[in-house]
Amino acid sequence: CWICVNSCVSCISELCPDGTRDYSPKQMAIRERVFNAIITCFKRHGAEVIDTPVFELKETLTGKYGEDSKLIYDLKDQGGELLSLRYDLTVPFARYLAMNKITNIKRYHIAKVYRRDNPAMTRGRYREFYQCDFDIAGQFDPMIPDAECLKIVHEILSDLQLGDFLIKVNDRRILDGMFAVCGVPDSKFRTICSSVDKLDKMPWEEVRSEMVGEKGLSPEAADHIGEYVQLHGGLDLIEQLLQDPKLSQNKLAKEGLGDMKLLFEYLTLFGITGKISFDLSLARGLDYYTGVIFEAVLLQPENDHVEEPVSVGSVAGGGRYDGLVGMFDPKGRKVPCVGVSIGIERIFSILEQRVEASEEKIRTTETQVLVASAQKKLLEERLKLISELWNAGIKAEVLYKKNPKLLNQLQYCEDTGIPLVAIVGEQELKDGVVKLRVVATREEVNVRRESLVEEIRMRTSRP
Amino acid sequence: CWICVNSCVSCISELCPDGTRDYSPKQMAIRERVFNAIITCFKRHGAEVIDTPVFELKETLTGKYGEDSKLIYDLKDQGGELLSLRYDLTVPFARYLAMNKITNIKRYHIAKVYRRDNPAMTRGRYREFYQCDFDIAGQFDPMIPDAECLKIVHEILSDLQLGDFLIKVNDRRILDGMFAVCGVPDSKFRTICSSVDKLDKMPWEEVRSEMVGEKGLSPEAADHIGEYVQLHGGLDLIEQLLQDPKLSQNKLAKEGLGDMKLLFEYLTLFGITGKISFDLSLARGLDYYTGVIFEAVLLQPENDHVEEPVSVGSVAGGGRYDGLVGMFDPKGRKVPCVGVSIGIERIFSILEQRVEASEEKIRTTETQVLVASAQKKLLEERLKLISELWNAGIKAEVLYKKNPKLLNQLQYCEDTGIPLVAIVGEQELKDGVVKLRVVATREEVNVRRESLVEEIRMRTSRP
Repeated sequence: CWICVNSCVSCISELCPDGTRDYSPKQMAIRERVFNAIITCFKRHGAEVIDTPVFELKETLTGKYGEDSKLIYDLKDQGGELLSLRYDLTVPFARYLAMNKITNIKRYHIAKVYRRDNPAMTRGRYREFYQCDFDIAGQFDPMIPDAECLKIVHEILSDLQLGDFLIKVNDRRILDGMFAVCGVPDSKFRTICSSVDKLDKMPWEEVRSEMVGEKGLSPEAADHIGEYVQLHGGLDLIEQLLQDPKLSQNKLAKEGLGDMKLLFEYLTLFGITGKISFDLSLARGLDYYTGVIFEAVLLQPENDHVEEPVSVGSVAGGGRYDGLVGMFDPKGRKVPCVGVSIGIERIFSILEQRVEASEEKIRTTETQVLVASAQKKLLEERLKLISELWNAGIKAEVLYKKNPKLLNQLQYCEDTGIPLVAIVGEQELKDGVVKLRVVATREEVNVRRESLVEEIRMRTSRP
Repeated sequence: CWICVNSCVSCISELCPDGTRDYSPKQMAIRERVFNAIITCFKRHGAEVIDTPVFELKETLTGKYGEDSKLIYDLKDQGGELLSLRYDLTVPFARYLAMNKITNIKRYHIAKVYRRDNPAMTRGRYREFYQCDFDIAGQFDPMIPDAECLKIVHEILSDLQLGDFLIKVNDRRILDGMFAVCGVPDSKFRTICSSVDKLDKMPWEEVRSEMVGEKGLSPEAADHIGEYVQLHGGLDLIEQLLQDPKLSQNKLAKEGLGDMKLLFEYLTLFGITGKISFDLSLARGLDYYTGVIFEAVLLQPENDHVEEPVSVGSVAGGGRYDGLVGMFDPKGRKVPCVGVSIGIERIFSILEQRVEASEEKIRTTETQVLVASAQKKLLEERLKLISELWNAGIKAEVLYKKNPKLLNQLQYCEDTGIPLVAIVGEQELKDGVVKLRVVATREEVNVRRESLVEEIRMRTSRP
């Protein structure tokens, strides 16, 4: 199994396609918690929600992902249109805006995306995985929506209590200006940008040799880039680069640095600059970004041997893409967009590990009461009672046996965390009561049948 | 456009694959309401939730869907495994049980499934659509889980207030027994069953000629079937068929009728027989059913010209499939299962039409307050205030403009249904207050800044 390297525990078996997995009820319970935190944040920021099909016309995805296009899943040609599974939620969003002539929207979208990643190079990564996207489309004053996207990342990562994190920020215009002043030919901007993007996984020496060896960049240009991409900091670095004799002469870089300064002013008002780093090595691989780009990484706690906290992987990313919607509009009308995507697979696995370690018992159902009987031949009475409870909105279960043992019924409650048992017996039926047992304390009380619903509600409402 | 026949309103354009659609924020709001009703019911019955990948190994789906297998979407062979998009949620569930050696579970699963339906024959049907499945797996006493599945359909269709409905019930064993006593050769059972399945769309004469002409059944056998399949009723019909001189001699039919009688006893305890009809014409096309089968249809209200209410389409279906899990187990170990699938696309469109007709205004966001200003140069103050509100968990928005007009800010609230506006101005800042305006009444009060969060919470909490 290439996902878990050695032991195929839950993710994979010969019956599941490579790179995919089922979610068990326990995993779903954790997944719902994470989704709730994220959706709550998106709604706090006034987002609407949309949904799009899992596949798009193949041509919709063509030319949007640069070198990564080879990872797109195509459907078989069975007659009719050529289709591909979506690779992200951003391109379908841009297609949706263009198709419906929407020029102004703030929306979120949570759905699975598909990438034919090479097993060998991507241990621990899935071919089917969730993205949680929040995007703001429309013509607005500079950097206000961009700052809100960063605030959202900050809120979500803080809420989920995943430990320390850092949000790296850069701007495609600063990168392009930097490439220009370093002497990279225009035609090589995108491919050199892809190389810079690998700096979070490879040392500079390897990236440099890819630039010079594979991509034919001059060693001088590469070395010049090497000086810039080790820079990271805050407002002070922005000021410094605005004075940089070469960069300050480049129109694109100057624009990008000016906006970066404005962004940091807004982030200061939001009180979140402590976790933001302007980082010239951040490039992001996707072709469609045109302005601000960012990526959030979780940090390993510092220890005695390491001076700076070490990144353990990206959990969110995004940026501005002002040209993408125009690619789908017959007249090329542009709709400026900025957005963020939360990559929650890594967040799931961190929380899953934490639950395992803590031995926290996670309930996978919400059942309030088990309808049980102590004697035989009471199936009909159990069914009548549970039907009354269901009709009153009580979450109730019954064992699917004609004559279950009381012990087995109580054990079922222990196993699944059901807090109450409603027991019917000959005597109770005669007296018009039901015996209500609290599983945790073994306390038992007789409750008049007409008061049972109210009693269960009272005992299971959260404090 | 083949979906909406003439006018391409919202479902389709040249940019969307045939048979798929986007969901707009308004459609999503309606969709969430329906999902909530369904999930609430599934949880009331103690179900856990699972999820599986959108595609399965092609071989997993092979031989499970009879004549409908031609509608399966295959992925392109790009190296590696052969994959297909899931056709329903039942086969992936069975594969999940076998793979994880689960013999006992009650779960729901809500996800999209994929069918390459022929445009010409399926106006108004989608190629990508949701299914909401609830299934009970395990070895239990007869008909108790089966009865619960019917109770669930009854609860959901009642909750959603879709108008009158009828749940038709039959049993594959009764059908097979009937075929045997009518003289259908064993080898033709499945294909004749497919023909019977068409009785809800075609008159008997056409179905008969398909049986005799295309499928080579003898006219006598067909006519004999024709007599049975017009029967429908309740307990009385079951008793009558248990006395039928031919059927009562057939072991399978007798078993099926005995269980049907038990089922009706349980449904009587649940108080829902009023909407259940034992109907010998119900066949359901899928190969994997082995016992009880059922289908819920919405009824058009009776009018003067029509004696019986007319069915306007199936909204739920299901049945027992005791052999499916065994097909995935190397040793063929069986896990008996029964389940129901709610087909919610039709439910969506009914509710969508109802919302359109009622002119009910549906909010697509939950924003509680817009942070606004009446004067220029207050963007920084707006951002500081909204940041405070977000941090306190208030759902808040701000216009992304440096100097928006107050009128535009108020108009935005009118358009999107935001109930409150928090207005900052020079004087308010000096006084340490915020002006809180109620959009509906135009009432304005000054609130001390430190009390603002509490005041907004109080004014927007539901009664």
